[in-house]
Amino acid sequence: MTDIPADLTEVADKVDLRLAQLFEAERAQWVDVDPRLVEAIDELARMTAGGKRLRAGFCYWAWAGVHGREADERRIIDAGAAFELLQVFALIHDDVMDDADTRRNRPTIHVEQAKRLSANKWRGEPRRYGEGVAILVGDLGHVYADRFIGGADPMARTVWDQLRIELNLGQYLDMQAAASGEVSRETAQRVAMFKSALYTIVRPLQLGAALEGGVTEELLAQLDAFGRPIGQAFQLRDDLLGVFGDADRVGKPVGGDLRDGKPTELVAVAIERATDAQRQVLTTIGQPHLSDQDVSDLLMTLLETGAVGEIERRIDSLVEDAIHESSRLPFAPEVRKTLVAFATYVAARNH
Amino acid sequence: MTDIPADLTEVADKVDLRLAQLFEAERAQWVDVDPRLVEAIDELARMTAGGKRLRAGFCYWAWAGVHGREADERRIIDAGAAFELLQVFALIHDDVMDDADTRRNRPTIHVEQAKRLSANKWRGEPRRYGEGVAILVGDLGHVYADRFIGGADPMARTVWDQLRIELNLGQYLDMQAAASGEVSRETAQRVAMFKSALYTIVRPLQLGAALEGGVTEELLAQLDAFGRPIGQAFQLRDDLLGVFGDADRVGKPVGGDLRDGKPTELVAVAIERATDAQRQVLTTIGQPHLSDQDVSDLLMTLLETGAVGEIERRIDSLVEDAIHESSRLPFAPEVRKTLVAFATYVAARNH
Repeated sequence: MTDIPADLTEVADKVDLRLAQLFEAERAQWVDVDPRLVEAIDELARMTAGGKRLRAGFCYWAWAGVHGREADERRIIDAGAAFELLQVFALIHDDVMDDADTRRNRPTIHVEQAKRLSANKWRGEPRRYGEGVAILVGDLGHVYADRFIGGADPMARTVWDQLRIELNLGQYLDMQAAASGEVSRETAQRVAMFKSALYTIVRPLQLGAALEGGVTEELLAQLDAFGRPIGQAFQLRDDLLGVFGDADRVGKPVGGDLRDGKPTELVAVAIERATDAQRQVLTTIGQPHLSDQDVSDLLMTLLETGAVGEIERRIDSLVEDAIHESSRLPFAPEVRKTLVAFATYVAARNH
Repeated sequence: MTDIPADLTEVADKVDLRLAQLFEAERAQWVDVDPRLVEAIDELARMTAGGKRLRAGFCYWAWAGVHGREADERRIIDAGAAFELLQVFALIHDDVMDDADTRRNRPTIHVEQAKRLSANKWRGEPRRYGEGVAILVGDLGHVYADRFIGGADPMARTVWDQLRIELNLGQYLDMQAAASGEVSRETAQRVAMFKSALYTIVRPLQLGAALEGGVTEELLAQLDAFGRPIGQAFQLRDDLLGVFGDADRVGKPVGGDLRDGKPTELVAVAIERATDAQRQVLTTIGQPHLSDQDVSDLLMTLLETGAVGEIERRIDSLVEDAIHESSRLPFAPEVRKTLVAFATYVAARNH
């Protein structure tokens, strides 16, 4: 059920090759100017390795739905590389905002670079230096992402600009809501709409379809209707994994979202369903220095409220909605089948 | 001598109008989705106010040299707005990396937002929240900047991508060199080439000339030859202002560059010219907690080595080089005259 679909792996391999070519070319261009510049490129390359390339996959298969897989793939693979670089830009900056220690089972840039300053006995505060490098390496990834979209059709560029604004505004809302302790279901759904439904599924589909021009508003709307429930299911699965997921697979600590006070729909549903006693336990979410026992109590309470069951049922129902909408896409049956397989995968994945 | 040229103010006013329109449209688009999103746009607008619009000015007048001032200005004003948004993105992120308290005589975003968290008694660490907001608002500015360049000619986009990579790599080198205490003249010149010569002068000129297509490699090379000495002079003036400038005018504290250990050519020249005793004083640059007396001793030593005089003579010589190169530009005499006035202005400015 949660094996990565072969049609996704195939796109991922092509995108990875394109990314490797980019980093090699950039290293070659800058090493002679100053070998220190290569350090920034190497950090970006390190963080880019190992993603699932989900956005590239949805983007590619919407493109294949419009043009068929026999068309020249160069530009759609570039677009896939753009999505992966944009994602790594967002992750690097998010990891600074969340002070995450690890990402994809490797130390994050700001942690690694802070250590470098200390180890070399350089001047300044390790934390500030580490975060400074992470901000810059993220910014560099953003530029390379954008360069890959450069020659796309104006409609595709419009989608690209929109999704980048949504990504940043969604992250702002997420952070502000977490800080202010505003964990309403409405806010959680709004953040999920920006960061997961739109950024991860709908916009990649639309950009793929629009990449070479001639896309209709009708197709963009159909892809929206198909992608939105997948994105919601993706986010709900992410919420469950962020609380109950296996740390090694997910690549970040179990219970982390509870310690961070992340405003998820899972938590919002639990609060709605909770008895007074359960609600008392749930108020500890987001408090600093939660012990392992506190986290364990929270996990039990989330289960006991029935929130986990409700979220699982909602995921199933959202996938059914997506499958229903897929029948309206004007794509070849094998393309629709692949897109449905992706939808099922993102809703059921275990990391 | 240091009055802002009227031809620059005129471009600045048009760019400011365009930026005001952008912020108004974005506020209108997002306020109904969630009023909290407008906070991020407001912070960006706040930091965008009050720049000199230098890059927009150089960009505009190179465009006017190619097309004449009677052409439709819409796209070149968009490009000017793009430069100003990119600059504010870079400043917001730089201010986090440098932990600067003020910018353009206003509190920086990360400082202001850290205070907001404390004042509202929100969850989490004020510093992390403030810096998180600043990172996101900067990223948002980067996206809006890029959107303004969207429909430009491919050659102009190539210049745009190149200058953004140079900007980030230059900042990385600057930060790494400051941390590692590597203050050689060569490194200082390399950082200045990226961040000032290329990013501030040469690339804006080239992008203006290339914006509507049909630019020749020869013209790009001529603009490079004209812009590079201006950029070097701009940076050397910046180095002097960063040490000796009037705090209120410059918008950042006097001696700040000495406390930060910023690897400038001024400091590199001073070290080269110093006696053993003077060199002893200069080694305190970049040490934490310099007293006002320490800074005062450093200022005196910089003057006594003759480094300040040498830098002033180099600025004069660079402006002469630029004036010489301007005679080769295939532009109307009044355009060349305006560009030379800009060159003189940036080399002699007092803030």
